[in-house]
Amino acid sequence: MSDAPDIFAKFETELDVRPDDIDLYQHVHSTRYLDYVLAARFTQMERDYGMSMQEFTDRGLGWFMTSSQVNYKRPLGLGDRMVVRCWIESITERGCRVGFEIDRLPTRKRSCDGFCDYSLVDLTSGRSVAIPDDVRKKYSI
Amino acid sequence: MSDAPDIFAKFETELDVRPDDIDLYQHVHSTRYLDYVLAARFTQMERDYGMSMQEFTDRGLGWFMTSSQVNYKRPLGLGDRMVVRCWIESITERGCRVGFEIDRLPTRKRSCDGFCDYSLVDLTSGRSVAIPDDVRKKYSI
Amino acid sequence: MSDAPDIFAKFETELDVRPDDIDLYQHVHSTRYLDYVLAARFTQMERDYGMSMQEFTDRGLGWFMTSSQVNYKRPLGLGDRMVVRCWIESITERGCRVGFEIDRLPTRKRSCDGFCDYSLVDLTSGRSVAIPDDVRKKYSI
Amino acid sequence: MSDAPDIFAKFETELDVRPDDIDLYQHVHSTRYLDYVLAARFTQMERDYGMSMQEFTDRGLGWFMTSSQVNYKRPLGLGDRMVVRCWIESITERGCRVGFEIDRLPTRKRSCDGFCDYSLVDLTSGRSVAIPDDVRKKYSI
Repeated sequence: MSDAPDIFAKFETELDVRPDDIDLYQHVHSTRYLDYVLAARFTQMERDYGMSMQEFTDRGLGWFMTSSQVNYKRPLGLGDRMVVRCWIESITERGCRVGFEIDRLPTRKRSCDGFCDYSLVDLTSGRSVAIPDDVRKKYSI
Repeated sequence: MSDAPDIFAKFETELDVRPDDIDLYQHVHSTRYLDYVLAARFTQMERDYGMSMQEFTDRGLGWFMTSSQVNYKRPLGLGDRMVVRCWIESITERGCRVGFEIDRLPTRKRSCDGFCDYSLVDLTSGRSVAIPDDVRKKYSI
Repeated sequence: MSDAPDIFAKFETELDVRPDDIDLYQHVHSTRYLDYVLAARFTQMERDYGMSMQEFTDRGLGWFMTSSQVNYKRPLGLGDRMVVRCWIESITERGCRVGFEIDRLPTRKRSCDGFCDYSLVDLTSGRSVAIPDDVRKKYSI
Repeated sequence: MSDAPDIFAKFETELDVRPDDIDLYQHVHSTRYLDYVLAARFTQMERDYGMSMQEFTDRGLGWFMTSSQVNYKRPLGLGDRMVVRCWIESITERGCRVGFEIDRLPTRKRSCDGFCDYSLVDLTSGRSVAIPDDVRKKYSI
């Protein structure tokens, strides 16, 4: 399944809940947690992996989500601050699984966790492509 | 796991993509598909199951999502129309799994599918409660 | 200010509030009303004016919002249906003002109204351009 | 129009664009700028004025937006950081006008500006009420 080492580094990004994330139940709307993960990933790709989403785009490549799973434990609310922890869980020839955990600050109690599967896609053809060696290297940390 | 019959009815709701659903990749943003499912469920609870979300609220009850899984097949785009098909996949003592499929219209090609797990919650205590018999009956169709 | 006739046609589009539009105050979030106007405009450009946003894009043109004003009267809520009425209020050499009214259905009581100013922009240069004659003609109804 | 002093303090909050704020034109979606203002205001009410939105809610009071105006100058894009500057522009018996400016960082070039009018509302009756003296005092800085 994976030709990558067992243990990949975990990276953390801190974010604040925005008032427009709150829904009719007075909690962060269920679909916003993946937006937090997305935001954290954009930051971490550039800061921690050394290859920003823009650099992928410049090479004609994009990461398309093929599936996502979220396990909701404790909802975040108005004014909450969180840490979003992400890591590569596995790498295959054409994609990877990114695991994540969102903890409420300052208690660091788990709010939700899950994973997203991504395929690397040639933006011109729209087809999945093999992950180039230099990309694989950068992501195998 | 489930004390409910094997086969539950599937219900359909048609929706249009809104321009503000489109993201930087020119497709419906990945987290909006669950919002379509949520919108379809609100309609179907009232129209097809005969018990609206408001009636749950009036009884001091709410459905809290405990997990969700989405499998993305073909992204929807600007101006697209879709059908959202939902059904009860299983009922347990305190919750249920709702399966869904979103197909693009008019071709009815699959855009995404998945499921959401819900727990019935007492809105005052915030704790999960057993599904009342009359609710179980309405949902066992 | 305007070289266009005084009276332009008004067009209507009906929309439903989506559950994810509701905010912490149990009403449609204040910024979503302009999203309803945007959705109605996309429909009306194609259906009523005979030139869709896509056709503008294909000609290398885009409409960029330069200002917006919204007057909030009565908030919409969960499950509400509305009619969004839009019209050209004035056309200048390089832009136009679109007036709008959103009424709650079936009572047609006013929920909000206002206007959006747009500039026609060359998508390559990013600069505002004069509205081509054929476009002006289509919009002067 | 206003029984308040001419000059009120301006407060600043720095925010980051989130990837889900970007729309089909690769810029921050036009309706998100007011969400940034709202987020900045929530922070500033607590940090700078010494009375959080929650404290208003606890007293049975809420601020309802009655109108908004946004003038768009230069769109923000993916990865951008901004400063949101807000201030009380005028106070009337039952409401206030909040002015705002959003500047892109680090250049501090203007992205947009405008104002929001608010009415103080009794959350039980839904009617506008006179601003209590202690609130007026806190906001007259």
